[in-house]
Amino acid sequence: MRRPVVAVVGSSGSVHAKIEAAAEELGGRIIEAGFRLLCGGRDGVMEAACRGAREAPSWREGDVIGVLPGYDRGQANEWVDVVIPTGLGLARNVVVVASADVVVALAGGSGTLSEIALAWQLGRPVIGIDLELGEVGGWAERLVGARIDHRRGGAISRARTPAQAVELAEALVEGGRKARR
Amino acid sequence: MRRPVVAVVGSSGSVHAKIEAAAEELGGRIIEAGFRLLCGGRDGVMEAACRGAREAPSWREGDVIGVLPGYDRGQANEWVDVVIPTGLGLARNVVVVASADVVVALAGGSGTLSEIALAWQLGRPVIGIDLELGEVGGWAERLVGARIDHRRGGAISRARTPAQAVELAEALVEGGRKARR
Amino acid sequence: MRRPVVAVVGSSGSVHAKIEAAAEELGGRIIEAGFRLLCGGRDGVMEAACRGAREAPSWREGDVIGVLPGYDRGQANEWVDVVIPTGLGLARNVVVVASADVVVALAGGSGTLSEIALAWQLGRPVIGIDLELGEVGGWAERLVGARIDHRRGGAISRARTPAQAVELAEALVEGGRKARR
Amino acid sequence: MRRPVVAVVGSSGSVHAKIEAAAEELGGRIIEAGFRLLCGGRDGVMEAACRGAREAPSWREGDVIGVLPGYDRGQANEWVDVVIPTGLGLARNVVVVASADVVVALAGGSGTLSEIALAWQLGRPVIGIDLELGEVGGWAERLVGARIDHRRGGAISRARTPAQAVELAEALVEGGRKARR
Repeated sequence: MRRPVVAVVGSSGSVHAKIEAAAEELGGRIIEAGFRLLCGGRDGVMEAACRGAREAPSWREGDVIGVLPGYDRGQANEWVDVVIPTGLGLARNVVVVASADVVVALAGGSGTLSEIALAWQLGRPVIGIDLELGEVGGWAERLVGARIDHRRGGAISRARTPAQAVELAEALVEGGRKARR
Repeated sequence: MRRPVVAVVGSSGSVHAKIEAAAEELGGRIIEAGFRLLCGGRDGVMEAACRGAREAPSWREGDVIGVLPGYDRGQANEWVDVVIPTGLGLARNVVVVASADVVVALAGGSGTLSEIALAWQLGRPVIGIDLELGEVGGWAERLVGARIDHRRGGAISRARTPAQAVELAEALVEGGRKARR
Repeated sequence: MRRPVVAVVGSSGSVHAKIEAAAEELGGRIIEAGFRLLCGGRDGVMEAACRGAREAPSWREGDVIGVLPGYDRGQANEWVDVVIPTGLGLARNVVVVASADVVVALAGGSGTLSEIALAWQLGRPVIGIDLELGEVGGWAERLVGARIDHRRGGAISRARTPAQAVELAEALVEGGRKARR
Repeated sequence: MRRPVVAVVGSSGSVHAKIEAAAEELGGRIIEAGFRLLCGGRDGVMEAACRGAREAPSWREGDVIGVLPGYDRGQANEWVDVVIPTGLGLARNVVVVASADVVVALAGGSGTLSEIALAWQLGRPVIGIDLELGEVGGWAERLVGARIDHRRGGAISRARTPAQAVELAEALVEGGRKARR
């Protein structure tokens, strides 16, 4: 049985302190729950989640994967163990969500919005973390509870905390396994 | 001076009669205004827009471009003049919006949402057609007037009709030219 | 019946005078034979072929398509009518050959070699122009007559001149049509 | 310091017993030398190399990465630890070589040829294993010692055995590190 992968998508650049703290906690809990963490490998939410993962007691080298838009490995944040430089530009967003068993979104602008939409289209479950930050909460907060379209059932799952997001991810992966049996 | 390109993004599959009529009118007006029309090359809004373009009095062979997710040219609807099979899967959505001077969205589910988000991220102007159809109006209607994130100014432009969408597209292209001078 | 597309692949950058002249003649003959010309949109063989196409008596606006590796339309040479910026980096090489009914190679380094290999893998017929220039003749010359692998029959077709390449392309497209009937 | 990645490219499908044995030995030696192994995740040389890696004494879960052309994780061979489904079709070949510090080629048809060419274009060092099998030896054997083009110095390095290939990979990675200092 392969270890399932949680992709973390969210704001790049400098982020609100509460978002950064949540991303870091999220990264740590993902590793502690036995998942591998995959993201776009850059700064902001991605970097905080990778740092949290790296500092988790259960972290082992190889648990943190960064899928970059360019060809230069040096663009990855320092907490990424496995760098996948693609040179694909924005099309790397597809690779990020396609590689995930579950996608967790935290805050986020247009890049995150594209990843939520692409994940939905690919049938990957999406969890949004809703910290009730209003506009700062970005697309993750804005879309929790929403049904993106009718090609599949369900909606973007709402998690109030990183802990709840990881619990939901575990339930979704377990549910997926049962459905495939 | 190259002819500017308008990308049409919107619902695939079977669509509401009002949306189909609007897509067909939109395609015709895009050609009559001197633009080239580019889209994902499949059915639904894409096919109706291509048909409208093909039936426009000013249409010339080569004006209608379809960028496909697969490798099989046969997947293109019959109104596409130039088929670009990419084999890229969902990553072809990036190529669709990157190729556009202006993106016009009509109705649409998760695929359209990803294209609106990617167009925003690439700095391509996006116009949503708002037919006031409610839920059927999809992401184009839902996002008119919205600012996707703060990496650029402005918002998704609202057009009430295909005619207005094409007028806006002309103004945006003209504005872009002046800005580059 | 859609107009078939010939993709021209070959050396970028500055090229030998005989190669440039052949590329220009090739571009013109492709258009005169009723094909559309598609290429990577940059300099070298690509630019000379586009220029030849543009100056052909039968050229109509829209006949010359350039599929770029970046997002910036300004990277296209001035003879391209329809610019498809992909932002995909080297992965745009796949789009170039996937869009072709027939691929014609002239000289060329590693990029051209990748395109010949990808075209073969996709089942697109490949014609190499052999000007008997030795090392300068690049991969097109080096691979004429070669069978790339056993997944399909045939070999890279040899053309001694641009005129012969276009004749071969016509025969290959006609043969393909008959095979599909 | 991140662990360097060796990409293994080579024939898919059923392969000659000597090639399969060499691929398996290669996979094991890559892991024993402290590299991570990355490949296209499918059958043939890829599968044998992954199996060899998995059975190496030093193997740890996460050391074997497979980058798939489709979206379905189930397409990966059973020895892959980390599956990256891309849905990119042949464009995934670019991701395979872009992710590598060193590329090792063994036998191979058109797909392998495209990967050697793309690796060269990206400046990734390429080692070909030459088992002196003649036609069965494929493009890896055919190109050892060749200079693909003049955009960079050097040539495809020749290794006579998997052991020699891994020694060369170590020297190339060490050389790259010194060059960056």
